Amino acid sequence: MAQKANAIFLNEYPAGMPEPSQFALKEIELPAPGPGEMLCRTVWMSVDPYMRGRMRPDIKSYIPPFSLDEPLSGGAVSEVIESNIEGYAPGDYVVDFTGGWKDYYISKAEQTQKVDPNMAPLSAYLGVLGMPGLTAWSGVTQILKPAEGETMFVSGAAGAVGSVVCQLGKVKGCRVIASAGSPEKCEWLEKEAGVDVALNYKDYANAGQLTKALAEAAPKGVNCYFENVGGMHLEAALNCIANGGRMAWCGMISQYNNREPEPGPPNLVNVVGRGVLIRGFIVSEYIAKAMEFAMEVAPLLAQGKIKFQESKYDGLGKAPEAFIGLFKGENFGKAVVRVGPDSN
Amino acid sequence: MAQKANAIFLNEYPAGMPEPSQFALKEIELPAPGPGEMLCRTVWMSVDPYMRGRMRPDIKSYIPPFSLDEPLSGGAVSEVIESNIEGYAPGDYVVDFTGGWKDYYISKAEQTQKVDPNMAPLSAYLGVLGMPGLTAWSGVTQILKPAEGETMFVSGAAGAVGSVVCQLGKVKGCRVIASAGSPEKCEWLEKEAGVDVALNYKDYANAGQLTKALAEAAPKGVNCYFENVGGMHLEAALNCIANGGRMAWCGMISQYNNREPEPGPPNLVNVVGRGVLIRGFIVSEYIAKAMEFAMEVAPLLAQGKIKFQESKYDGLGKAPEAFIGLFKGENFGKAVVRVGPDSN
Repeated sequence: MAQKANAIFLNEYPAGMPEPSQFALKEIELPAPGPGEMLCRTVWMSVDPYMRGRMRPDIKSYIPPFSLDEPLSGGAVSEVIESNIEGYAPGDYVVDFTGGWKDYYISKAEQTQKVDPNMAPLSAYLGVLGMPGLTAWSGVTQILKPAEGETMFVSGAAGAVGSVVCQLGKVKGCRVIASAGSPEKCEWLEKEAGVDVALNYKDYANAGQLTKALAEAAPKGVNCYFENVGGMHLEAALNCIANGGRMAWCGMISQYNNREPEPGPPNLVNVVGRGVLIRGFIVSEYIAKAMEFAMEVAPLLAQGKIKFQESKYDGLGKAPEAFIGLFKGENFGKAVVRVGPDSN
Repeated sequence: MAQKANAIFLNEYPAGMPEPSQFALKEIELPAPGPGEMLCRTVWMSVDPYMRGRMRPDIKSYIPPFSLDEPLSGGAVSEVIESNIEGYAPGDYVVDFTGGWKDYYISKAEQTQKVDPNMAPLSAYLGVLGMPGLTAWSGVTQILKPAEGETMFVSGAAGAVGSVVCQLGKVKGCRVIASAGSPEKCEWLEKEAGVDVALNYKDYANAGQLTKALAEAAPKGVNCYFENVGGMHLEAALNCIANGGRMAWCGMISQYNNREPEPGPPNLVNVVGRGVLIRGFIVSEYIAKAMEFAMEVAPLLAQGKIKFQESKYDGLGKAPEAFIGLFKGENFGKAVVRVGPDSN
């Protein structure tokens, strides 16, 4: 049976901050699923900062840019509607790397993982139990390797990745300093996520001011820095990094919408004198550790040692707004879009 | 017996490029060596870029700044003249971390290593067999860990550290791209040190031009980058770094005499997308590996697989000129100053 679907396309590649008019919701016709394929219905879709990188056709990146001729794509939790794949039956739920930005689509087994809708809210598989959670866990356990009593600094701390980093830092026995962009986010970080100090970076006009606040919050220096933001956050972290400090560079969201690249911080030489380790990474490097991640994080979630926030948007048409909100600091925790009815 | 000595002092802390007038040669009076002490005569002294960092009293660094009230200090090879230390006799030779910038001084056993003047020219213990050699070896074997067939890029490649890095890269089976600042240095690197391509960075006006040349010389990307220079070299290396590339940051000599810190490169985000490892280091971290270093490098030197160049200056009074030459690209290979007669 052929099926109509709605999908979001990019009208043009954004220069600078993306605008709603650069996205278009279009109706498309899906073929019937062939052998080894299935028809899926998207329940929740994810918007993530890395998608901005796929909207720059000029820059060589680790994933190809989006085409203007195809729907956008991204992570989703979906329900199987019709299946020609053994082991996948209608009513099954899957996390799918390609189901985002559309309401129905044809999928294959290899781009999915089955999930149990009774174990956790479905949307959590896009956040704390999904790619952002694995990203946070990988940076902490595979790169930063914090020792008990060390100090950890986390930028973008109220985001989908940062909030899990902060809480893993506390589980590992660290003093955790978080930076986020509103009093509400800072309050949640201190009261719910349990960080020691949350800094509202909007209170600081420049790297010098942020450095002073960070140095006060981290009197023994920063042993571990989890980098989501770049710019003045990186400069302050480099000023306060301890001898032998480690940095996991996960992203630099402050830089993604620059029309012209912004210079880096002037204090990179601290990396030499303080013997700092920096490791950049993309979560795909750690996919083989997904089970190890789930084994550690699922119990912490069940015990309430890891909490999470979601910014929920309703309807596929709201996806561009949810995405643009990532760069305006409008979302709190994981931003997800409800595309269709969620039975659980 | 008390002894007169000549020693070089700093008149004032330089701002920007150091000038000869900021140094002064003064006669001082040495006490007789006490128990556990010895009187030494400096034969060769070393000038090294890191000393510039000790001339900034305002910046917290890994070693304290030089005092204006005491002679400057640094590495030297010296002869023991009079000894109250068991196992050290007049006529013995030592490498001493404190014997530089003076002709006679009082020393202690713990700041020295004995050396055999018949095994290698004495000045080599300040270069390929000394701290610069250990620095090069540590960066290559402990951080970059190049695999056979990989591409290595080395900035400051004709210097005391860089020239050893290049040759270790060749020993490990790498394609080695070197950057240096004159046609003569590039010729030595290609013909004597055996690098695959030597780039004269003065031929390139900016990071974009250097990137283009580096990309042509390293068509499969740069797997390993040894950083001595900073600035446009770092930017070009970040542009050309391969997925999974490693960078050993040993120094950023282009930045040491800036009156105001210079911004970093605008392409740090490549570290994230390409999963790059960066490790800054100071050679003191690897002192415990000095024997392992000597066991690997001494035979390579004996077999002619590692060659070295020296810029020799004659007389203690020439030490400031030798030091300043480090930042003007005037030295070729290890810069050493002959302070007194060398019997070998």
